Amino acid sequence: MNAICQRGLFLTFEGVDGVGKTTQAQRLRDYLSVRGLTVVITHEPGGTPLGEAVRRLLLEPSAPHIGKRAEALLYSADRAEHVADVIRPALERGECVISDRYTDSSVGYQVGGRELSSLDIERLSEWATDGLQPNRTYLLDMDPAAARRRFVVSRETDRLELEPEPFQNRARRAFLDLAKRHRDRIVVIDASRRVDEVWSAIRTDVNALLATRKMGS
Amino acid sequence: MNAICQRGLFLTFEGVDGVGKTTQAQRLRDYLSVRGLTVVITHEPGGTPLGEAVRRLLLEPSAPHIGKRAEALLYSADRAEHVADVIRPALERGECVISDRYTDSSVGYQVGGRELSSLDIERLSEWATDGLQPNRTYLLDMDPAAARRRFVVSRETDRLELEPEPFQNRARRAFLDLAKRHRDRIVVIDASRRVDEVWSAIRTDVNALLATRKMGS
Repeated sequence: MNAICQRGLFLTFEGVDGVGKTTQAQRLRDYLSVRGLTVVITHEPGGTPLGEAVRRLLLEPSAPHIGKRAEALLYSADRAEHVADVIRPALERGECVISDRYTDSSVGYQVGGRELSSLDIERLSEWATDGLQPNRTYLLDMDPAAARRRFVVSRETDRLELEPEPFQNRARRAFLDLAKRHRDRIVVIDASRRVDEVWSAIRTDVNALLATRKMGS
Repeated sequence: MNAICQRGLFLTFEGVDGVGKTTQAQRLRDYLSVRGLTVVITHEPGGTPLGEAVRRLLLEPSAPHIGKRAEALLYSADRAEHVADVIRPALERGECVISDRYTDSSVGYQVGGRELSSLDIERLSEWATDGLQPNRTYLLDMDPAAARRRFVVSRETDRLELEPEPFQNRARRAFLDLAKRHRDRIVVIDASRRVDEVWSAIRTDVNALLATRKMGS
């Protein structure tokens, strides 16, 4: 993590769609807020005005055709703006940032799903973020088909959610491979359990993390 | 140039705004068409449906704020789609592609203008285009202030055109530096002359190029 940001705490949630990232991120936000921390909760794609425009291009099923490289570059553009405009300024103010998806999602979907080069995608993320990495990442892991069945039927699906199951399974494997390579940062959480059990695992880890940083006590 | 594209001919026009790229590109299109070549004339940003959406994000003065890295990544996304969807397929059909701006514009504006790293921007372009380089680039060079005075007053200006003069001067220098490093590919044309004289210089060069490739005779 960039030295200038060490005052704040940067936490991310990752995993395929439907595993409960948004629910758990909100619980974590509430938990940290009660402990007196100033928390910014955000998401990718779309955490800035530019990001919302890019999100529409990327995810609306009616949007124009997009090739693999253009897609990866649009996600990176969204992320670059998100880091420069939202995440880094909050960390510099000493705040806690929780992001629903970040660079690992590009490895999951662009490397695992679209089968682009891992080295290329990691370099792209490194440049887009100017090297900013999370202090901790919660990878909510479960079978993508089971996760998909959790979607509320009436909810509109976006373009990634319409991808076939092999795509989602490759994304899951890419997330898990990444976790093996970054054991210090990424905590794999079994997301097939009840919401309270998943939250309990996250809370235990975050308490340990806060204790080492003497935050929120 | 990627081996699979060697059948076609890829020509680009570069330079700051107002130097006459569009006019000269159209003359070249007409000239090559008369010689029996199938010509695709296109431009960046915006040569695809995705590109037109990205172009609006990049250039409309009313669009959301965009940081330097996000801007560079959006131009690259536009370019990746342009190459995959328009340029490479035409070259593979053996056609001639003329593009009004291509990768050198990112060096001119993102490196020269915005002062991002030359190595980073060149790597980004290399990845976005999967290494596709033009056979010949015509760099139309003149003083940016004089070029700006050529704009028709009623024409709407875009965001890059609203950049102050030092930005445009740095872009011009970056274009000229690039030309020194790529003498085999980039031909610098003095664009302060009359349109017919500029065209004459381009025509002379393109005739020589076609003769070496035994095209359009």
